[in-house]
Amino acid sequence: MKKRPSILISNDDGITAPGIRALMEVALEFGDVTVVAPDSPQSGMGHAITIGSPLRLRKQKLFNGQIGYACSGTPVDCVKLARAKIMDHVPDLVISGINHGPNYSISVVYSGTMSAAMEGAIEGIPSIGFSLNDFRYDADFGPAKEVARILIERALHNPMPEGTLLNVNIPNLPFNEMKGIKVTRQAIGRWVEQFDERIDPHGQKYYWLTGEFKEDDQGEDHDTWALRNGFVSVCPVEFDLTAHHSIPFLNRWGLTLEGKATT
Amino acid sequence: MKKRPSILISNDDGITAPGIRALMEVALEFGDVTVVAPDSPQSGMGHAITIGSPLRLRKQKLFNGQIGYACSGTPVDCVKLARAKIMDHVPDLVISGINHGPNYSISVVYSGTMSAAMEGAIEGIPSIGFSLNDFRYDADFGPAKEVARILIERALHNPMPEGTLLNVNIPNLPFNEMKGIKVTRQAIGRWVEQFDERIDPHGQKYYWLTGEFKEDDQGEDHDTWALRNGFVSVCPVEFDLTAHHSIPFLNRWGLTLEGKATT
Repeated sequence: MKKRPSILISNDDGITAPGIRALMEVALEFGDVTVVAPDSPQSGMGHAITIGSPLRLRKQKLFNGQIGYACSGTPVDCVKLARAKIMDHVPDLVISGINHGPNYSISVVYSGTMSAAMEGAIEGIPSIGFSLNDFRYDADFGPAKEVARILIERALHNPMPEGTLLNVNIPNLPFNEMKGIKVTRQAIGRWVEQFDERIDPHGQKYYWLTGEFKEDDQGEDHDTWALRNGFVSVCPVEFDLTAHHSIPFLNRWGLTLEGKATT
Repeated sequence: MKKRPSILISNDDGITAPGIRALMEVALEFGDVTVVAPDSPQSGMGHAITIGSPLRLRKQKLFNGQIGYACSGTPVDCVKLARAKIMDHVPDLVISGINHGPNYSISVVYSGTMSAAMEGAIEGIPSIGFSLNDFRYDADFGPAKEVARILIERALHNPMPEGTLLNVNIPNLPFNEMKGIKVTRQAIGRWVEQFDERIDPHGQKYYWLTGEFKEDDQGEDHDTWALRNGFVSVCPVEFDLTAHHSIPFLNRWGLTLEGKATT
């Protein structure tokens, strides 16, 4: 008899977030689930790992009575600890989310949700990050669960392209109003910062990071377009960051050490 | 008269690290320098940004008497704050480092040094991260300064390929023993974790992240090979993480929302 798939789940909103519960509910339909997630919100942590301080793991009873692990570190730490200290086997799938808020365009590089999935992919495991286009804590994850179910089913039955993970962004719409699923590319865009400058009670300045997304992409094949137009965006992401197309360009710089020593 | 170039410098080892001083010394030969760097070590911070707590900036006198800014946040926060709150113009170059320790292969996704440079590139500014293959605090940055001088000179006089930053890794060798400069790709490899498990004085477990790099790449055109063989590695890096080659593959998954609603 074929073993039930083993699925590792993490996120960046923390182990108590409704979004990770939604993802766990769907994953349990497919297999055995291990949950290792941050003990507090870790949004925007990118691919951070914890080097300068030690990590803690705390067993925690989840909504269905099973034990999960709350980790004091980042989403990437969670995946690393799960693999090294909690699981005695390689999972069949790593899923992360469902994030409270979207992760389109350049947000992929800042997102803790996506970094947990990327860490899975780096370890050679099929991996998906899920994000819902709704920042609210009490967002309705029902339609997103339908989408997650489709993707998880496909990922368990199809090979993932080599060196690739999936960034799935889900529109904040009833399931029957979603337009479809689009395989997309990362939109060209960036966050423009407008730090909110304040004065503390001791007369010292401090700054809150805020920002506005600035899209610079007229295409209709990218993640931001898909989400804005009611489609689920499935964007393949890679962790080989080499700008291969730039190699011939840089070779024309004629870089050499010769004659450059200034003693 | 042509204005002197404006160069923004950050790092992840902190504003007092010898590596950033070395980079500043070289940059001052070319232009005006703005230093905004973490007030404490931020290695392994990846592309983290600080959302949940406010940021502080502290003016600090640097070795040459000029004022720099120590920031309570991550390397990416430093670049964002520099642009939004400190500089009244767009710099001509963002440089980060010189990191105490190399950033080859997959390390690029964990590295705070590289993320500061990537943030510059995201903002459309030519950007370079420098790393020396020597973790020691008192490493000899003399030869690395020679290399940085060559790269900075080229970057100020040649257009950087679109959407690309440079990951420069410098061997720990006297300058005249370096074999040359190679334009490389990111080696295939990953860190395998071996968490060091300990018990605190209160009887609770905690974990230190340690790991070993596992290379899985027979090529001789990658960053790890170059560094190991005495070459300076110049690897072009991009922040479009789309796995473009995987798009046709995923289109064959035939993803659709049809008939999948479970009500």
